[in-house]
Amino acid sequence: MRISELSRVTGVPVPTIKFYLREAILAPGRRIATNQAEYDESHVRRLRLIRALAEVGGLPLATVRDVLRAVDDPDLPMHEALGIAHRALAPELAEQDDPAVAEAHTEVDRFLDRLGWKVSPDAPARNELAVALATLRHLGWPHANTRLFEHYARAADRLAAREVERTTPTGATRSEMMERVVIGTVVFDAVLSALRRLAQEHRSATQPVAPRSADPLDGATGT
Amino acid sequence: MRISELSRVTGVPVPTIKFYLREAILAPGRRIATNQAEYDESHVRRLRLIRALAEVGGLPLATVRDVLRAVDDPDLPMHEALGIAHRALAPELAEQDDPAVAEAHTEVDRFLDRLGWKVSPDAPARNELAVALATLRHLGWPHANTRLFEHYARAADRLAAREVERTTPTGATRSEMMERVVIGTVVFDAVLSALRRLAQEHRSATQPVAPRSADPLDGATGT
Repeated sequence: MRISELSRVTGVPVPTIKFYLREAILAPGRRIATNQAEYDESHVRRLRLIRALAEVGGLPLATVRDVLRAVDDPDLPMHEALGIAHRALAPELAEQDDPAVAEAHTEVDRFLDRLGWKVSPDAPARNELAVALATLRHLGWPHANTRLFEHYARAADRLAAREVERTTPTGATRSEMMERVVIGTVVFDAVLSALRRLAQEHRSATQPVAPRSADPLDGATGT
Repeated sequence: MRISELSRVTGVPVPTIKFYLREAILAPGRRIATNQAEYDESHVRRLRLIRALAEVGGLPLATVRDVLRAVDDPDLPMHEALGIAHRALAPELAEQDDPAVAEAHTEVDRFLDRLGWKVSPDAPARNELAVALATLRHLGWPHANTRLFEHYARAADRLAAREVERTTPTGATRSEMMERVVIGTVVFDAVLSALRRLAQEHRSATQPVAPRSADPLDGATGT
């Protein structure tokens, strides 16, 4: 297909496609004339992945490029490519000199060891957990230790087992698998977060326990 | 305690505390002289909550004020106050005129009805789910419908049941409960997201299935 057709199919404007081509984020089409190139399904899929990373994942273009390099590198073991994608998709946390975070980091490492999880020692998620733990402590959360994470770890592991299975259907190419993993990480993070908020609202609306104060908990709603 | 002591205990600088007082985000202390006031544990807890919302939750000050108003309003049913907090903590999504999102919205509403969840009709999480579903479709995700959300909903509900129980210990005041819920939403969202990434990396590193291409999946790591 021509670039105009590629634009129509993907909804990405022609000037944007040309920009991605110049930036070498999108592979060039097959040249059929001095000023014309032919594009195929691989371009459609790649454009959709770029848009997902940029718009759903909110990644800057330089990061999109790094993730795509990992997706495309056939020598990179799959779970290392995954690590690179996760690193790019992880929220940016300020560097922490806080000794409370350093202490929490050690506890998080021990916790992951206990779980028997095989994860990169520099996975940014370790630091996210350490910051979360230090924050809970700082806020005076009762019994703030990694035992609080256990139920979340179990839920995450159950979901991840299905997710990894789902992303490796028989006959999928490595690149297709990586695309699925990247999209799945970004989109289903949003899904899980949204559902957790809804479930909390639901559980809070329907729970029978009343707080100590005499305020009506639930009486004002008409359900 | 004096303002200097309040600053020491919470780690919040005195000028910042004075700013919060001027902005009426923090209640004034008990006046003991023309230019001196006495603060107590309620100020410590409130300051920590403000910092959690602003720093962990990344909320602008005006939003922090809205959430605190909901926390403090004794007439607001608990789960409605929770809805306000969740609305504030939800990621900002651009207004969607996309008919695909509108269609997905209807499906999401039906899905939540089927689950029997009692949630506000204008909960922003509904829109987040609709955008996620439309995105999956747009990216050509196979069988993109709300059935994909079922496992996530089950996991979210299991966690929420514990979370709501945990935030309502016997003897906690309404304000303490709300503080816990808000902190829990922000911090444990980060925890769950981090653990899901780690679990995916772990499951991907240890899964036995090889992709179609002949690339080594796991051989390069020394474990």
